[in-house]
Amino acid sequence: VPTSPHGPRGHQQRASRDTGSHPPASRVDQARARATNLALVARTVFAADPPPTRADVAAATSMTRSTVSRLVDDLVDGAVVAELEPVAKVGPGRPGTPLVPHAGAFAALGLQVNVGYLAVVVVDLAGGIRTRRLVTDDLRGSGPAVVLERLATEAAAAVADLPPGLEIVGAGLALPGIVTTATGMLLRAPNLGWSDVDVPSLFDTARIGVPVSVGNEADLASRTVSLVSPGHPGALRDFIYVSGETGIGGAVVIDGLPLPGRHGWAGEIGHVTVDPSGPACSCGSTGCLEQYAGKRALLTAAGLDADASTTALAERVRSGDDRATRAVDRAAWALGWAVGGAINIVDVPVVVLGGHLREIASLLRPRLEATLRERVISAGWVPPTIETAGADPTPGAVGAAYRELERVIADPARWIDARPGTSG
Amino acid sequence: VPTSPHGPRGHQQRASRDTGSHPPASRVDQARARATNLALVARTVFAADPPPTRADVAAATSMTRSTVSRLVDDLVDGAVVAELEPVAKVGPGRPGTPLVPHAGAFAALGLQVNVGYLAVVVVDLAGGIRTRRLVTDDLRGSGPAVVLERLATEAAAAVADLPPGLEIVGAGLALPGIVTTATGMLLRAPNLGWSDVDVPSLFDTARIGVPVSVGNEADLASRTVSLVSPGHPGALRDFIYVSGETGIGGAVVIDGLPLPGRHGWAGEIGHVTVDPSGPACSCGSTGCLEQYAGKRALLTAAGLDADASTTALAERVRSGDDRATRAVDRAAWALGWAVGGAINIVDVPVVVLGGHLREIASLLRPRLEATLRERVISAGWVPPTIETAGADPTPGAVGAAYRELERVIADPARWIDARPGTSG
Repeated sequence: VPTSPHGPRGHQQRASRDTGSHPPASRVDQARARATNLALVARTVFAADPPPTRADVAAATSMTRSTVSRLVDDLVDGAVVAELEPVAKVGPGRPGTPLVPHAGAFAALGLQVNVGYLAVVVVDLAGGIRTRRLVTDDLRGSGPAVVLERLATEAAAAVADLPPGLEIVGAGLALPGIVTTATGMLLRAPNLGWSDVDVPSLFDTARIGVPVSVGNEADLASRTVSLVSPGHPGALRDFIYVSGETGIGGAVVIDGLPLPGRHGWAGEIGHVTVDPSGPACSCGSTGCLEQYAGKRALLTAAGLDADASTTALAERVRSGDDRATRAVDRAAWALGWAVGGAINIVDVPVVVLGGHLREIASLLRPRLEATLRERVISAGWVPPTIETAGADPTPGAVGAAYRELERVIADPARWIDARPGTSG
Repeated sequence: VPTSPHGPRGHQQRASRDTGSHPPASRVDQARARATNLALVARTVFAADPPPTRADVAAATSMTRSTVSRLVDDLVDGAVVAELEPVAKVGPGRPGTPLVPHAGAFAALGLQVNVGYLAVVVVDLAGGIRTRRLVTDDLRGSGPAVVLERLATEAAAAVADLPPGLEIVGAGLALPGIVTTATGMLLRAPNLGWSDVDVPSLFDTARIGVPVSVGNEADLASRTVSLVSPGHPGALRDFIYVSGETGIGGAVVIDGLPLPGRHGWAGEIGHVTVDPSGPACSCGSTGCLEQYAGKRALLTAAGLDADASTTALAERVRSGDDRATRAVDRAAWALGWAVGGAINIVDVPVVVLGGHLREIASLLRPRLEATLRERVISAGWVPPTIETAGADPTPGAVGAAYRELERVIADPARWIDARPGTSG
């Protein structure tokens, strides 16, 4: 059965359907037009707030209401979009049916190896976190093969526990280091002590049934800031994300996406030199930002155990402890220096603090703000602002799942036509 | 007379010409198709090396030879493209006529205010520099109104001296500071001592007959690296350009274009802090890169007069002068530190040295290279490389003219149809 073209330029496509001389090319064109339009409608529904009706989608896409209705029906049948109860409109006209992302059919695995934990999340298409498995451990100096085997075991267990009907569309793995997404190679993750790790050869994807695509932890975590949920842009679209853990990762986010750079390795703000005569860094350089603002370095400098909590640190500062106060001050100053340099270079004057830096943002803010105002050449015109990331404990894993789910929104035809029982 | 459509999909456009029911829309579509195709042919000719024939252009654009021939004829009539003498091909077939940029009809004004000079260049569409006026002066602490008036006088003189038939398509002004191109506002140029300068209100464009668009000096100068001539990409397309004069400007160039950032203010590498306890900078911060590697700072640190030449500096270093050697070493180290941080943040591991830094590149190279290898986290995989810009003494002005000329290549129809005596 040939698919019918639901195009914004309906009359042109009907015309091409009338020409019987090239049926295969024409059918391919029609399928492509339908796929493009399904994606446009899906993108519109996922990005809208409040939930739009079919009429709202028609207005937003400049397609006819009947074309939109057919496309929405396909997306509803395909379980990409769901319908809420009709609500009466203010004024005349039939009540509209609000459309929302469908939460019950498609999901993605988000995986994360960090210096202090392994994480597995299952995130559905509406952004709901269905499962989270968090294994806390000290992975400094660990072996990649053993760790990725443990991660695959956790991931397989998460998949086995899923409710029936939830299809995993893909898996993303967030790593705290420099990765080449196209090949799955981790070049180096200094704090893990890993280098030249061929992830695809060590992670047994047969155990989860889908391929795994790797990414840098901060790049992926930044998606939980630029997006409210998959396909739904948040208020912040241009910012420098600074991810705090033992190491410090970063991403320069422009128009919602991390700047990749030449090889996908951009954003390594944790290894910007703050003081060349400072302590040796795991990367081989000296005085890198993470030697001042990384979690272990900061806690140790504050006179606390390297595994203490930021709550303990905050208590010490509030009680007037001099050593803790100086350590936080130095971290804020180092952060301001490195981020200030980054703002001068990329002109993105919004900083978003994640990880432990988010937890102590109120302590860091005064000195960080003052340092940025002093060091950023355009600060007199646009003063840099400091924001905090959400409180999700494994934003790298969640962002990795978001990236997989966005592939469904970008090309729903590919997914819904493959589902059993859909008309396609 | 209606223009005839020269489209890659000739039969579709002929079909639309046959429908007489919507003639105005159809004529607009045809004109748009012709403009798009003229631009495609122009881009192909300007970018090609060696000069292509009509057949080469047809092969490169997937248009028919007859369509290409008509478009090329229009570009030749419009003086955007010129024909060389036919050359015999190796093998059978008629000799082809090589096509090159036309040098004799369109040109642009490139203007520059730097701390040490005013410059005006006239650059033709083939990249030839027809005029260069260079007024050396110390413009620190100068008044913007007076300086821009002097610049307009020089520009008007350059226009008056032009050979007949050379049409100025626009003027670009390179400024050593933070500018907002859309409004023509210079926010600040610390070394000039200028801030909040409304350039359009101070530069009398009536004297040159074309509007002036402003830009950052390093952003514009970087075009003389990414391009061999207008429309002709060079070998380097991704690099960090560092412009050395009294101040140090920069541009992060990705795929041939400077990264703009949020407001067009990116690339301010000269104001990245190298040592917070270092000397006060004109920007209000302390220990900025330009306090170590800026020309005046470097010469003074080397024990030379601030207005001495880099040749004098190089002689001192080669003669073993300790103070000069230490000053160059410190400049190279500061440069490596700031650029190394930039490479960590944007992952563009190619540095291009311009201005006085180009002149002393061989002195800077050993320490700069070593510092980059130490400070760049990915250096073990892709070692940063150091290149030098061309020797043009006013690359900001030339790049500003390039930017104007690229508008002709991007939309030749707009220019050739306005010329007297062309069929359009």
